[in-house]
Amino acid sequence: MIKKLLIANRGEIALRIIRSAEELQIKTVAVYSTEDAEQLHVKFADESVCIGPAKSSESYLNINNIISAALATKCDAVAPGYGFLSENAKFVRALEEAGLKFVGPSSEVIDMMGDKIAARDLMKKNGVPVVPGSDGEVVDVEEAFIIAEKIGYPVLIKASGGGGGKGMRRVYKSEDLKIEFESAKSEAIAAFNNGSMYIEKLIVSPKHVEVQILADKYSNIIALGERDCSIQRKNQKMIEETPCIRLTEEKRKELYSAAIKAAKACNYENAGTVEFVLDRENNFYFIEMNTRIQVEHPVTEMVTGVDLVKEQLKITSGLKLKIKQEDININSYAIECRLNAEKPLENFLPESGNVNFFYAPGGVNTRVDSYLYSGAKVSPYYDSMLGKIIVKDSTRIGAIRKMRRALEELIIEGIKTNQYLLYAILFDMDFIRGNYSTSFIEDKLEELLNLMEAYR
Amino acid sequence: MIKKLLIANRGEIALRIIRSAEELQIKTVAVYSTEDAEQLHVKFADESVCIGPAKSSESYLNINNIISAALATKCDAVAPGYGFLSENAKFVRALEEAGLKFVGPSSEVIDMMGDKIAARDLMKKNGVPVVPGSDGEVVDVEEAFIIAEKIGYPVLIKASGGGGGKGMRRVYKSEDLKIEFESAKSEAIAAFNNGSMYIEKLIVSPKHVEVQILADKYSNIIALGERDCSIQRKNQKMIEETPCIRLTEEKRKELYSAAIKAAKACNYENAGTVEFVLDRENNFYFIEMNTRIQVEHPVTEMVTGVDLVKEQLKITSGLKLKIKQEDININSYAIECRLNAEKPLENFLPESGNVNFFYAPGGVNTRVDSYLYSGAKVSPYYDSMLGKIIVKDSTRIGAIRKMRRALEELIIEGIKTNQYLLYAILFDMDFIRGNYSTSFIEDKLEELLNLMEAYR
Repeated sequence: MIKKLLIANRGEIALRIIRSAEELQIKTVAVYSTEDAEQLHVKFADESVCIGPAKSSESYLNINNIISAALATKCDAVAPGYGFLSENAKFVRALEEAGLKFVGPSSEVIDMMGDKIAARDLMKKNGVPVVPGSDGEVVDVEEAFIIAEKIGYPVLIKASGGGGGKGMRRVYKSEDLKIEFESAKSEAIAAFNNGSMYIEKLIVSPKHVEVQILADKYSNIIALGERDCSIQRKNQKMIEETPCIRLTEEKRKELYSAAIKAAKACNYENAGTVEFVLDRENNFYFIEMNTRIQVEHPVTEMVTGVDLVKEQLKITSGLKLKIKQEDININSYAIECRLNAEKPLENFLPESGNVNFFYAPGGVNTRVDSYLYSGAKVSPYYDSMLGKIIVKDSTRIGAIRKMRRALEELIIEGIKTNQYLLYAILFDMDFIRGNYSTSFIEDKLEELLNLMEAYR
Repeated sequence: MIKKLLIANRGEIALRIIRSAEELQIKTVAVYSTEDAEQLHVKFADESVCIGPAKSSESYLNINNIISAALATKCDAVAPGYGFLSENAKFVRALEEAGLKFVGPSSEVIDMMGDKIAARDLMKKNGVPVVPGSDGEVVDVEEAFIIAEKIGYPVLIKASGGGGGKGMRRVYKSEDLKIEFESAKSEAIAAFNNGSMYIEKLIVSPKHVEVQILADKYSNIIALGERDCSIQRKNQKMIEETPCIRLTEEKRKELYSAAIKAAKACNYENAGTVEFVLDRENNFYFIEMNTRIQVEHPVTEMVTGVDLVKEQLKITSGLKLKIKQEDININSYAIECRLNAEKPLENFLPESGNVNFFYAPGGVNTRVDSYLYSGAKVSPYYDSMLGKIIVKDSTRIGAIRKMRRALEELIIEGIKTNQYLLYAILFDMDFIRGNYSTSFIEDKLEELLNLMEAYR
């Protein structure tokens, strides 16, 4: 078993990992930037090490400093959380060279899944449905034209090294293809130093549905249910729920089996998420695999009773998965709302400052994962997510009502947040019916902002 | 369905009830004393009414004011929580006369269960095991001698109207019987204006084990598992857990069936708890029935997934129980710690004052039911319980470790609490083995207080 764990992250996910590690009697070491000395993750860990100044590139992304901290405190493993270095194969290789375990898959798997073209090809070869599109890289505009004609417009131009919507373009007609292809490619070169591009059919207004996977070192792989993460703004998820009510039991089984196939195809180990789009006819297509714990993992924990971070730590320690696929029986509904420090009315401008007062909602089946406390500092240097509220109920409408109640109880004084926007969404009839796609926020933003103003 | 509910209580249980009511879309009315104007239950309810000055007898025990508040705000039901008027048959009759529903059983049932001799006789008649002892009232010392000789020493003298240890005496030899009987009787007359006494065999170092019951208006009764509440000090519970690890599956079934028999015997309706003592040979004996929601109900909620307060509200509304006995499958372990404002080193002297800073522990399967927030006032007028921490895990040792972690995270600044005494208990080897009886705290207090001082 891991004896001492360095948590290479901050905020709510650092707290989340510390909690599970301590319950497994693993000693914990927090790292922090000079900006973060007063943060809760520093206080909750058994030890802490300052790894640099406020700027992420010099602290939470500073591979050398993190490895030095782990070695100096005699850690035997490092948990990356999400973001920062969590999907950085170079970091994982450096840990391997330093003799440290990484709480996640191998650097080879991270590399493979990080290369979108390679991942897509691998899935296709292994019988996992992928969105119709190019076989591998599209070298130039001429080839792009041929493929787009074949699969039909609209199409999506994507960068192999892409992420966060960079190097991505929607093209609705052939006249626009040339200019969009070239601009996406330049953007990809600038952002990832990688101009390798590919093309997919654009699935209009899909649902984003993903499957949580756990895989141990002994080829045991299980699927822990799906999550519908379609409530997003600019590719940033806002509300996630499980189960996805549009799936039939039959379709759900197909989806799980595709996700397990995907994990097997790359010899996956540890916790991971296989992401799909679901079109209007309920056809699903692989889009990518996230090789880390995700922000929205608690909705899965609520309905399965499995502590995913503990499972990650056990898998990294070389233990066999004790949970079997037949143990996963989901008969309740969970919803997560992401609480961000931002001004929805000012184009979601991130907020920072001091939280003078914080009250976390409580009660039955109500979980709050947040780094806030009365007096906490919200730094302008890092992601604006303050934490998450997660609720569970035996019915979906019960879960929605519980989340409304939780958002009514929540008090954050001192900074602006998206609290009331989340609240407004919970009263939208299409949300209540589960009748929404990834374009929900874009389509309804004005209406939701008006509603939000009425509620606050 | 109830439309608008008055909550005739304060503190964490008032919050607890408001939360479930709001999730069922029932409007809520809080009542408060002038002392409590800034309490959270006043802020969380839809409306609130001041019912009198700080002293409980003039506010939270003031039947007229509470009924006036309910009528003035057009409530159709009143939830009493625990303590205060929760087991006051006169209050329930006054509500019935005012046309208000009471969230609990009828005044007849409360009366019957409040008379210990009558309850004991009823149970005996209905085949529920009771502690060997007198049949009905023991009129004088002479009769007491005869019964004590028959059942054998040690014996317990009890008052029929008793509660909280008043009018109760342990007698170890016949020489002491006369003086103890007379002193218990005088105390009972002074405390309850009722000198009716009875005698039971004293069960030495028993476990206190109780069964949670739900019963609807249509004679459907289910048992929702047991709770081991043996960690007590002067009859006040401190730590509760479920399941009781000393019960075999066979014995557990017998216990549930006795509890259901007890509930049937009095035509019980709503949530209730049947309390038993469990002797060293695992024989159990009925001691009393509590006709209200109990402080420790959340451990049952954690392992069954049932929201007991919602069930109370549904039963009061006339709905049929949807949960069947076969739906209750318990395969996890829950523990609750009661957090009190008190000074364990000064003979548990109650504390009051302002809580300058409060941090509630969070994380997976960790629930905090408390009325505290950063800035909350702890009043000297009311019970010293600040709230409860409840955790669940798939193993008992996992639950113990989670509770330790939760108590490490908990921060209460400004007043003294029993936080570190609770923490010390979680490291006691007899506690860890489940090898404890109601005399645990008494037997180990000095040792635990020393350990507590080492931890803080």
